[in-house]
Amino acid sequence: MKIIIAGAGAMGSRFGLMLHQAKNDVILIDGWQEHIDLIKQNGLKANFNGEEIVENISIYHQNDVSSVDFSADLVILFTKAMQLDGMMQSINNMVGENTKVLCLLNGIGHEDVIKKYVPLSNIILGNTMWTAGLEGPGKAKLFGNGSIDLQNLGTDGKEAAEEVIEVLNVANLNAKYSDNILSSIYKKACVNGTMNGLCTILDSNMAGFGETDVADDIVEAIVSEFAAVAERENATLNVPEVLAQIKTCYNRETIGLHHPSMYQDLIINNRLTEIDYINGAIVRKGKEYGIETPYCSFLTQLVHAKEQILGAK
Amino acid sequence: MKIIIAGAGAMGSRFGLMLHQAKNDVILIDGWQEHIDLIKQNGLKANFNGEEIVENISIYHQNDVSSVDFSADLVILFTKAMQLDGMMQSINNMVGENTKVLCLLNGIGHEDVIKKYVPLSNIILGNTMWTAGLEGPGKAKLFGNGSIDLQNLGTDGKEAAEEVIEVLNVANLNAKYSDNILSSIYKKACVNGTMNGLCTILDSNMAGFGETDVADDIVEAIVSEFAAVAERENATLNVPEVLAQIKTCYNRETIGLHHPSMYQDLIINNRLTEIDYINGAIVRKGKEYGIETPYCSFLTQLVHAKEQILGAK
Repeated sequence: MKIIIAGAGAMGSRFGLMLHQAKNDVILIDGWQEHIDLIKQNGLKANFNGEEIVENISIYHQNDVSSVDFSADLVILFTKAMQLDGMMQSINNMVGENTKVLCLLNGIGHEDVIKKYVPLSNIILGNTMWTAGLEGPGKAKLFGNGSIDLQNLGTDGKEAAEEVIEVLNVANLNAKYSDNILSSIYKKACVNGTMNGLCTILDSNMAGFGETDVADDIVEAIVSEFAAVAERENATLNVPEVLAQIKTCYNRETIGLHHPSMYQDLIINNRLTEIDYINGAIVRKGKEYGIETPYCSFLTQLVHAKEQILGAK
Repeated sequence: MKIIIAGAGAMGSRFGLMLHQAKNDVILIDGWQEHIDLIKQNGLKANFNGEEIVENISIYHQNDVSSVDFSADLVILFTKAMQLDGMMQSINNMVGENTKVLCLLNGIGHEDVIKKYVPLSNIILGNTMWTAGLEGPGKAKLFGNGSIDLQNLGTDGKEAAEEVIEVLNVANLNAKYSDNILSSIYKKACVNGTMNGLCTILDSNMAGFGETDVADDIVEAIVSEFAAVAERENATLNVPEVLAQIKTCYNRETIGLHHPSMYQDLIINNRLTEIDYINGAIVRKGKEYGIETPYCSFLTQLVHAKEQILGAK
């Protein structure tokens, strides 16, 4: 299958590498010049479950793909949320009327961007439990196991989704069909929509926040806003189950002493955050549906204030 | 007049000193042992508009006043908000049925505590524009001019309020009667209810926050909650005027580069904040009146989370 990995960071590198190993025709597209140059020179390097490997995969800068002749059967989207629209524009000439587009970005509402470029029946939404890291430009660090749930967004795209599942499974990516992918996406977004913004604003790890006596009240208020919006999209959230999952983040024995990714982005690396695609998406959808979302709104504003105070870019 | 200054920090020292200079019979009551010991030894020292002075005023620890024989005509309250109830209990045997109690604390809703101990007709609420600092225990730093607005809380206490105004004015404290003290108190609380919590949570000075592109939206949301609660207490707020006053805090040429007092308390000195008596009071009153106050609620929770994460005491 001819596959574009659009966004070849840590996760994109994992998917590109595994799909390439499974004999698909894969190209990577990214916007990080140093990373691109090294992969062009040396191939994509990886520490893959402890083994040092190199996979020779074509890679292009997204500003430099207009002359690339590649009619994709499948695009897998792995950009940062704020880069999605630009990426869709960049790859537009490689996306035909039969190209399936699988979105595996964190956050919610990305389909609103994608459907500007792709018919609904070709859009597939997914949720992945794989992890991945970069050791530096040109080299990924890929450990452990994962899985993917996915579902076609349009009513008539199930066959295409199942075809994609087969390709992913040949590459050992453990994909399976979901009858309710939106619920999984919202559930994951609830974890990100609490831990990310709150730990960033409070300059805290997850345990530090979770052990305060206001944590439950704050988390419940935020999750109830996500649930109300999700309900309107027929994506029912089991709120007690979501709250229980969030509480597992507070465990000092497992991940509680970690800072979530938004904290890494803003506080450690001084980068703009994806808050507009997590809590901010709930605010936008809430306005559309006439649902009050003050906690998501205030948290989104506070994170934007912090970005500006710190001069993040 | 026999006057108790209940809470003899910076502002209490100013009022105690000026009222003592005006030949009133003043005693100071406080809870800070080192400060009390030095004032007992050396008198209350002050740099008073550039002049080094000493005023010999009696001072007692609030846990040590049960045997003090002093029937107060007037109590002026200057404690931290969270210490008010304890102070009212401590001085209870010096407060008779004719003792007037003037509350000059920052924040709102203190009358709910005071009226547990004092009849409504003896309670006077005030708002002061005086400033004061401490150079250290036992020594105040008092510069510039100020004023006080005050009003009786009960319907039949105006005469008493005017008597208190006269005593304050003899001591050059520039007091005047207000027909709507609650509005002034709410207006001041709006400044504190935005700058204090927001700069504390965002680890920012006032200009830094004010220059973000979300500042106006956040401030308007918070002030509108204060205004809705104030309205129910017949304390109408002129919202555009309040917003304009808050914006003066952002001016880098004047006070914009300062951190507000709550930031000093929590971030610099690791002390618990007065948030429950500012935004937290709006939440409590909002519940009572059936008014939604999500921004004040979330901000109060965030400040409490920060207190606990930092181990403030």
